[in-house]
Amino acid sequence: MFSANREIRFGDCDPSGIAYFPSYLNILNGVVEEFWGVVGFPWRELIVARKIGTPTVHLDCDFSRPSVFGDLLTFDLCVRQLGRASLCFAHVVSGADGIRWKARQTVVATSTASHRAIPWPDDIRNALEEHVRAEDAIPLSEPDSSARPS
Amino acid sequence: MFSANREIRFGDCDPSGIAYFPSYLNILNGVVEEFWGVVGFPWRELIVARKIGTPTVHLDCDFSRPSVFGDLLTFDLCVRQLGRASLCFAHVVSGADGIRWKARQTVVATSTASHRAIPWPDDIRNALEEHVRAEDAIPLSEPDSSARPS
Amino acid sequence: MFSANREIRFGDCDPSGIAYFPSYLNILNGVVEEFWGVVGFPWRELIVARKIGTPTVHLDCDFSRPSVFGDLLTFDLCVRQLGRASLCFAHVVSGADGIRWKARQTVVATSTASHRAIPWPDDIRNALEEHVRAEDAIPLSEPDSSARPS
Amino acid sequence: MFSANREIRFGDCDPSGIAYFPSYLNILNGVVEEFWGVVGFPWRELIVARKIGTPTVHLDCDFSRPSVFGDLLTFDLCVRQLGRASLCFAHVVSGADGIRWKARQTVVATSTASHRAIPWPDDIRNALEEHVRAEDAIPLSEPDSSARPS
Repeated sequence: MFSANREIRFGDCDPSGIAYFPSYLNILNGVVEEFWGVVGFPWRELIVARKIGTPTVHLDCDFSRPSVFGDLLTFDLCVRQLGRASLCFAHVVSGADGIRWKARQTVVATSTASHRAIPWPDDIRNALEEHVRAEDAIPLSEPDSSARPS
Repeated sequence: MFSANREIRFGDCDPSGIAYFPSYLNILNGVVEEFWGVVGFPWRELIVARKIGTPTVHLDCDFSRPSVFGDLLTFDLCVRQLGRASLCFAHVVSGADGIRWKARQTVVATSTASHRAIPWPDDIRNALEEHVRAEDAIPLSEPDSSARPS
Repeated sequence: MFSANREIRFGDCDPSGIAYFPSYLNILNGVVEEFWGVVGFPWRELIVARKIGTPTVHLDCDFSRPSVFGDLLTFDLCVRQLGRASLCFAHVVSGADGIRWKARQTVVATSTASHRAIPWPDDIRNALEEHVRAEDAIPLSEPDSSARPS
Repeated sequence: MFSANREIRFGDCDPSGIAYFPSYLNILNGVVEEFWGVVGFPWRELIVARKIGTPTVHLDCDFSRPSVFGDLLTFDLCVRQLGRASLCFAHVVSGADGIRWKARQTVVATSTASHRAIPWPDDIRNALEEHVRAEDAIPLSEPDSSARPS
């Protein structure tokens, strides 16, 4: 799991006083951008040098509790599925009092020239698989963590 | 169905050259705002005078084809369900070449003071039901609309 | 003078209930984009086909009265100066009760490849000069409009 | 001087590949928000509890060099003038290669109810003056800081 902290800013909130959902998604997109840097493929390199975009093709959000400006939120991101050209993230956004919202997001590797889907290049696929393995490794290496002694 | 036209602006697009999805959702929110004016409850009145907000609690989007700046899009909005405190919209966004993206959005009536759900006040519920009836009425009241006299 | 109407949307306003100035500037930028279409050089053609950007190098704003969402504003744009590579706009933004804010904006023609200033190509310069002449022509063709009989 | 670091995100940039100036100003506004927290008056307290807004009445920007996404920028903020109801900031935004843009910004204390200017309350004025004194004190208390022993 990749985690990032964000403070909700005045400019992210609307006249009813709570985080404006398009601003929430702008923040989420920045968290995903940060994730790509962490797995070794900063978007600048991906988009400008390699001409690969990762547009969002599906997005599914549940907003359970509002946030107000000044709130400190944690954005947790998990890779859920890695397809030939697609990648599915599960996002959980929490405040001090628990979950504020959740999202499922599917992005697709595309050529920035044609805007058509392309298979993930091997180095990118390997880095994503490596990230997932590192995550999975946590329970695997601690196989008995859920086994409670009676 | 309520329809609104929007031009995708330079400022709505990202460095890969296509509409940035948080900007898309900002535009969508403006279309929903326009819808509320049309059914007789401009947000200014709703939020400022009556202290009723309509935050989004669920959002589900499928982006099938990208848009670029300068594109003229049509946003079609249908009321799908009217609950005690909730309202579900189906959105279809189209360009010259067909559908670009679709969304399902559920909003909930809330008190702007407590941010808690409240039942739709009767006048608002009536206006929304009236809008839905007017939509439904089109085929019902004009059963022979496709029958042309020879 | 070029004029465009805009409604201030909920999403353009902040938790203190008034138009958020970065959103104001996003709207202004869309008005400038519309202006370029009117003089015959839509940004899509300028940027994508001809690789010419027009970044803002100077901006000077005076916000005299706040706007709230639902307000209908008129954006008036005048070309004030046309340099070798630069262009200066004067903007006046008004609501029903008079001026809300004013801005001076200088943009510069640049190569989108190098981000360096380039002289305005002749066809663009001619179109801008033509626009300015058409504006100036109004008083010239009506030379006596300000002469009041005594 | 108050300083804050910001990374320019994909979503802050436009189709010509550089930071979109309205997004720059959104980031700047977040830096000013952070400044208010540092001087002891977080905007949430100011706006929600004390009903004091600080809208921008004047803004003057010079953008000298473009930024691209992934750039790390430093935002330096100095208080330049403290009036009865106004406050003037000087901003300098720098990247690895020097200054990217500068701004002068004047904000005014207002009642969020009336949107009219009000004098800075004493505690806020004192905190701002204290901040300015602490800044001024740096050269005064270290008069020989630029004198290097030979």
